[in-house]
Parts: sequence; C-alpha cells; structure tokens
Amino acid sequence: MSEIPYKIYLEEGEMPKQWYNVRGDMKKKPAPLLNPGTGQPVTAAELSHVFCDELVSQELDDTSRFIDIPEEIRSFYRMYRPSPLVRAYCLEEKLKTPAHIYYKFEGNNTSGSHKLNSAIAQAYYAKKQGLKGVTTETGAGQWGTALSMACSYFDLDCQVYMVKVSYEQKPFRREVMRTYGATVTPSPSMETSIGRKINEEFPGTTGSLGCAISEAVEAATSQEGYRYVLGSVLSQVLLHQSVIGLETKAALDKYGIKADMIIGCAGGGSNLGGLIAPFAGEMLRGENKYEIIAVEPASCPSLTRGVYAYDFCDTGKVCPLAKMYTLGSGFIPSANHAGGLRYHGMSSIVSELYDQGLIKATSVEQTNVFEAAEMFARVEGILPAPESSHAIRVALDEALKCKETGEAKNIVFGLTGTGYFDMVAYQRYNDHEMNDFIPTDEQLQKSIAKLPKI
Amino acid sequence: MSEIPYKIYLEEGEMPKQWYNVRGDMKKKPAPLLNPGTGQPVTAAELSHVFCDELVSQELDDTSRFIDIPEEIRSFYRMYRPSPLVRAYCLEEKLKTPAHIYYKFEGNNTSGSHKLNSAIAQAYYAKKQGLKGVTTETGAGQWGTALSMACSYFDLDCQVYMVKVSYEQKPFRREVMRTYGATVTPSPSMETSIGRKINEEFPGTTGSLGCAISEAVEAATSQEGYRYVLGSVLSQVLLHQSVIGLETKAALDKYGIKADMIIGCAGGGSNLGGLIAPFAGEMLRGENKYEIIAVEPASCPSLTRGVYAYDFCDTGKVCPLAKMYTLGSGFIPSANHAGGLRYHGMSSIVSELYDQGLIKATSVEQTNVFEAAEMFARVEGILPAPESSHAIRVALDEALKCKETGEAKNIVFGLTGTGYFDMVAYQRYNDHEMNDFIPTDEQLQKSIAKLPKI
Repeated sequence: MSEIPYKIYLEEGEMPKQWYNVRGDMKKKPAPLLNPGTGQPVTAAELSHVFCDELVSQELDDTSRFIDIPEEIRSFYRMYRPSPLVRAYCLEEKLKTPAHIYYKFEGNNTSGSHKLNSAIAQAYYAKKQGLKGVTTETGAGQWGTALSMACSYFDLDCQVYMVKVSYEQKPFRREVMRTYGATVTPSPSMETSIGRKINEEFPGTTGSLGCAISEAVEAATSQEGYRYVLGSVLSQVLLHQSVIGLETKAALDKYGIKADMIIGCAGGGSNLGGLIAPFAGEMLRGENKYEIIAVEPASCPSLTRGVYAYDFCDTGKVCPLAKMYTLGSGFIPSANHAGGLRYHGMSSIVSELYDQGLIKATSVEQTNVFEAAEMFARVEGILPAPESSHAIRVALDEALKCKETGEAKNIVFGLTGTGYFDMVAYQRYNDHEMNDFIPTDEQLQKSIAKLPKI
Repeated sequence: MSEIPYKIYLEEGEMPKQWYNVRGDMKKKPAPLLNPGTGQPVTAAELSHVFCDELVSQELDDTSRFIDIPEEIRSFYRMYRPSPLVRAYCLEEKLKTPAHIYYKFEGNNTSGSHKLNSAIAQAYYAKKQGLKGVTTETGAGQWGTALSMACSYFDLDCQVYMVKVSYEQKPFRREVMRTYGATVTPSPSMETSIGRKINEEFPGTTGSLGCAISEAVEAATSQEGYRYVLGSVLSQVLLHQSVIGLETKAALDKYGIKADMIIGCAGGGSNLGGLIAPFAGEMLRGENKYEIIAVEPASCPSLTRGVYAYDFCDTGKVCPLAKMYTLGSGFIPSANHAGGLRYHGMSSIVSELYDQGLIKATSVEQTNVFEAAEMFARVEGILPAPESSHAIRVALDEALKCKETGEAKNIVFGLTGTGYFDMVAYQRYNDHEMNDFIPTDEQLQKSIAKLPKI
C-alpha cells in the first residue's frame, strides 16, 4: 500500500462514466410514488407534466443498476470534479485518535455544495427536451445556486422560489443566483395561486420549504415549456449523487483502504444516499459490510423520531405521495435551526434502506454541531456548512471512541459544503446566542396525526 | 504530449520544497528599504523590532536563489495545495478563440485567496521565535482571514486592524476571522495613539489601509512578544508566494506547455510577484522569453500612472521607506472601488522588474472587470474575486486578439480567489449601479507631490 496523500484526486480517466442506481440491487424496492387523487402508483405520463421525460424514466427505474452519464454532463463534471477525498491527518493528530479519518469534500465549487451534481444533470435533460426553462424552490440557497449555475451553462431560464426568511436573511445567496442569471422570488409570493392563498391564510408568514415547492410546481405546470426540478428527496437525485460515492469508493480502492464506517448528514437524503450508494450496494449483494450512519438535526428528526408512511411532499399537496420516514408535511422546524436539513421527510430510498436495517440513524443538537464545525475549521482549514457539520460531529465522536478502544477504524464522512453564506449562524454561535430546539413528542404527534389516509 | 486534463494537479512529491527568490537572479537589485529617520538602509536589528527574525533575514536576502520551505509549512500547504492549474476549455469554446487559456486557481481554501501561502509562513516563523502573537491590518479581509487561519493552526494570538468601512460592510469576513479566534478591531480605533490622532483629525473617517498598517505596527511594537506581519508588498511575501509560480511552471512543464503570456492582477504585487517569479527568473538568466502583464485598477494605477521613488508605506509614517511605483502615501482610491488592489504603492521587486522592462502593465476599469467576472463565472463555474477579475479581463481581451490573428497563444493567468464575500459589489453591478472612477492628473500630482525628499 502506497503512502496515503493528504488529498486523493482521481485522474480524469478514473472518474465514473455511469451513475449507480442502488434500487437495482434492492430486493425489496422503495415504495412507489402515489397519485394523491387515485391512491394508485403514478404513471410516467402523469409525472411528465411536472418533470422532464428522461428524469421521469430515471425516477421510475428501480431495476437498472447503472445508467450512463451523458458526455455533456461528464464534461461539466470535469470543471469541478473529481472532488478530493481528504485524509484528515491534522484532525487525527488534534484528536490523538488511532482512527483514520477521511472526508469527501464537495464544497470546492461556487454553489458551495454537492447539489451541483444533480443540478447539472437535471438542467441537461431539460435542455435536451427542448424546454425553455425550469422552476424550483430553495431554502438555505445551496440548491438554488447550483441550479442557477447549471441553467446558465445550458442557457436555460431558471426561476427560483426562495423561502422568504432565507431570501431576506441571505441576500448574498440570492445575489449569486442573480449573477448566474436566475430570477429569485420570495415565497410565499403573490405570483401563484397557492402563494396567494397561503399569504391570505397566514399574513406575514416567512414561508417554508413545503410551500415553496408547491409554488414552484404550480409555476412549472402553468407555463409552456417549463418543468419543475428538485434538489433532494427524489430517487433521480440520489442517482445523480451516486457520483459522490463512486468517486469515494474508487479513491479508497486506489489506496487499498477498506472503510469501516460511513457517515453522512441527512436532510432530504441526497448527499447521504449518493455517498453510501456503492457501499450499500455491496451490502445488499452480500459482498461486504459497513457501518453506515445517517446524521440528522435533533430539531428535524425524521428518521429517528418520525414514522414510515405515505405522506405529502409539499404543503400545497400538489406533488405525488411518497412513502418515507416523515414528521408530517405540516412540520416546520424551529426558526432558530441553522442551515438546511429542514425537510419534514426523508428520501424513499434512504427510508427503505433504514427500514431494512442497512443504515443507522442518530440526531445531534446544533450547539454541539457548531462546536465540531469550529474545531474542524481550525484544524482542517475548511469552514464547513452547518449541514455538513452534523456529519463532522458524529465523525469526531466516533474517532474519540476509537481513542478509548484503541481501534484504528477507517472513518469516512461526507463534507457536503462550505459555510461562507452561513456566517450569521456562526456569529450567533460565537456570541453564545445559539440554542437548541428539540420538538416535544406532543408537537410531533400533532403533525404526524395529519398524514394522509392511504 | 499527453492530452491536457481540465485541471492539472501536481502529486505531493512534485510540490516545491523550496521557495524561489527572484532577487537572487536580478543583476540590478530592488532598492533597499530605508530608515525614515536616517535615510540609511534599514538594518536587521532595526527591522527585528517590527518583524520576526527569520522574516527579517528573508526580507534582506537579495542573493539566495532558493530558500527551503520548512516541513511544518509544507505540511500545512498539503491541506489546500497543490492548487489546480485549470485549462479553461469552456471559456475557450465560449470565446471561440484559438488561444489556450490556463489559470492557476488559488481560491480553493477558506481564506478564499492566495494570501494563505504567506500567512502560514509568517505565523510559523512567529511561533518558532516563541512569540505570543502577531498584529496586522486588512482591507477587503482576505489577508486577515488567511492570517487568522494560520494563527489558529499554530495557536498564536492574532490581532487584526480592519479598515472601518470594510469592518462595517463586510461583517461576514469579520465573522470568519472571529471563528478562527482572531480579535478584529475597526481602524482607525481608539486603541492606538495613531488611531486616536487620526480619529481626532478626521472625525467620522472610515479608514484606509495605510492607516490600519500604522495602527497594527504600533500595536505590535507596544506589546511584549508580538510582531507585525504584512500580506503583500514586502519581498518576504513575494518569496512565499513564489509557490504559486513554481507549481504553475511544474504543471506546465509536466505537459510540455510553454506559456507565451502570463497575466496577474497587481495591488501590492504579492500574487503577481509570486506567479511570475520562476518565469521572470528564466528571463533574467536569458533562458526564455515571456510576455508578462500586470493588471491594475484604473482607480488605483500605481504602475501605469505613478512615479518610481522612495515613499512611505503607511499613513502614520512609522514603516521604513520603500522605493516603489507609487501614487503617494496620501492617495486613497474612490470608495466606489470594489475589493482590494487599493494600495498606493507596488512591491519593490515588481517595481524594479517593471522598471527594467521585464513586465508590462495595463489598467482596467471596474465595470469592464465585472463584465468579465460574470462571464467567467457563467462559463467556468467559479465566481471570481473582484481582484482576480482584473486578470480575467485582460486574459479575455488577449484571447479575443488571438481570435483575430489566429494565433494559438498559451495564455496563463492567476485566479487569486473567490468573490463569495464580495456580493455587494456584484449586486451593484447587476443593478447597474456600479461606475468607474479614474483619478485626474491633478489629483495624482497632489498626492505624489507629498513624497518624502530623499
């Protein structure tokens, strides 16, 4: 085994040419999306009003194991990929742990996160279909930024509904999107009937992700030549994000490293699902064993405290129903919760893998998360996004356990992005004004009680 | 010749083990720093009150061609270096130019720029000398951020005097520094006698770089166990920044590419001086020819409209005198000028190379700069810093000239950093509220008239 460098970069020729669809290796498949009107599995025809045709077929394809990455997308990937798999030598030294810590860093692109991996794919298929543009929602702004970049590359119109509270608190994120030519509208807006209705019912509301989704879907279906695109949760998104896991696995294999533990933060599940895909595949095929840990915020604990059931994906209830671990579509995490990972549900694939026992889940409180973030920033030189820092927290804890047991585990975690646009949260942490918010059982029961009856 | 990848990364074993000191190859050396009191060259003993001992010896050493990079610094470099040399395939295609465009991207680290290359070196020598901490000034905030990161790594106290207007307009930059444990004071402050004097003379002043330098120097010399560090202009800084040029040259050589033209933005000269060092060395030794272009803002045109003379380095006149191209230490560029590149003078090394005719210089207006920045962001996927975008502007112009002449020149430019903390400037550009400011001859004559009499 050669000495392991600080950063493992694959050569261009070693980069994945196909995405990996973990559903192809699952004996028990994730439950299908349902038409909320009929209660029947949605058809490709129904979905094609909302999504691009090729993305619909990816969404519904639960048998193909590999899907070719078109050359145009691979060409864009080469602009910012391969992302490095970093050996955290400095962190190991700081912790004095015998564990070997690796992180796959997806933040070295202007969108600041892994979201670009799927944004460019979705924009490509929209362009290929001859569409004029796409609509979407964004919360913290990472997905909106990524999509703006992708659309600008393919010269597509990009309309982003940004949760109002973020629109106002994160003017710089908004400005990056504008620089890439996107139109950014605070949600709920007066431009859609759902937005007007929500504004009327809840005057002065600062919006939610579920509401912004509803607006974006309405905007897409009411304009000729537009489709809706989504940055997480969907199986197609996890498919595109498998590039993270494939590169990670190739980089580890290149140096003969066997991961013992794979840790990822989980909001909608796109990063986690992408990172773990090829590892979960080996487990599903009985070839290998890994300890996989999904980390979610204690303030939005869909895996650890939700129920596994069909639920609405959006507030306006215009999207298909998905079976997932959910807190109920009416659940909105506390406003003091920083960053993303605010979605009430979890991707069907991750939910099903969790239900089958292939994945463990844990939740962490945000002050502990920021403590880990700041420590990581100081020793590894990267200021992490609040989302990514959930994974850092658990990786640190696991590395410290190794220190006690003396085990030299190989711990791999996903560092999804940078926190340059999250300095308000860091400021609150530095000023000791940050607190934790954990929903009560009563609160959760209330929102879970409103699940649709299927 | 192998096919050239989108990004050329050196292997760890190919990274420079020594910095290159271009002064060692200059027959006519840059003029020495002078003691403003005596008018005589400053001695090591005099400088050592202000700077760390080893940095003083680097500052004064104009004969050694190579200086070893200590292992501790190389270890830190491995956290974020090598930086990629990117072949701008997408940009070439967009411009339909036969030119081959390469850029050395220094923005993939949390400080967001090349400044970290020297920050870590200066922090290391301070630590080695057993100091408690260092003081510095920062304008746009890149240098302050870089130094905060470096000091945090070596557990040194870091006191940053930040130009007041930036302190107020860039709270997020300030917050990154705090996250890395630095103390950030708006300048002019009431904490130094120079700050109090300037506040008294100019009530309500929003500060300047020259004034912040004076405060930081006073703070360093009035505290036991502290020294002052500077992020540009000095020869020691250019020495550390030679790592940029050495990596660039090694990456080009690896693929048998001969640069025709090397373009860098120039404020104090640290990025440009570092980028061009090994190329200028070959020219000085008569081994090769390159066209080297320094790009400065039309609003602060020290090379193109300044005079080559001894001048004060700071407003408070506490620093040694340096011979440089200067607009006079009283010159302050218009407040509407975005980003860095606001210093009234230019490093002695760059000034002397320019005077000897090895470097050309040109100035560009800021609306043209932002036009290039936005275009670059859209096709290359990196949102550039306003500073770096000066080089982009000229690289685009040169590539378009190649389109007319049909020449397939190899154009290399330095992309010093990212613009994530400069979104206010982008917003102004997007809202068509940005304008250019070019000082009149009369204004320049006025500040140049106040040069010290040597």
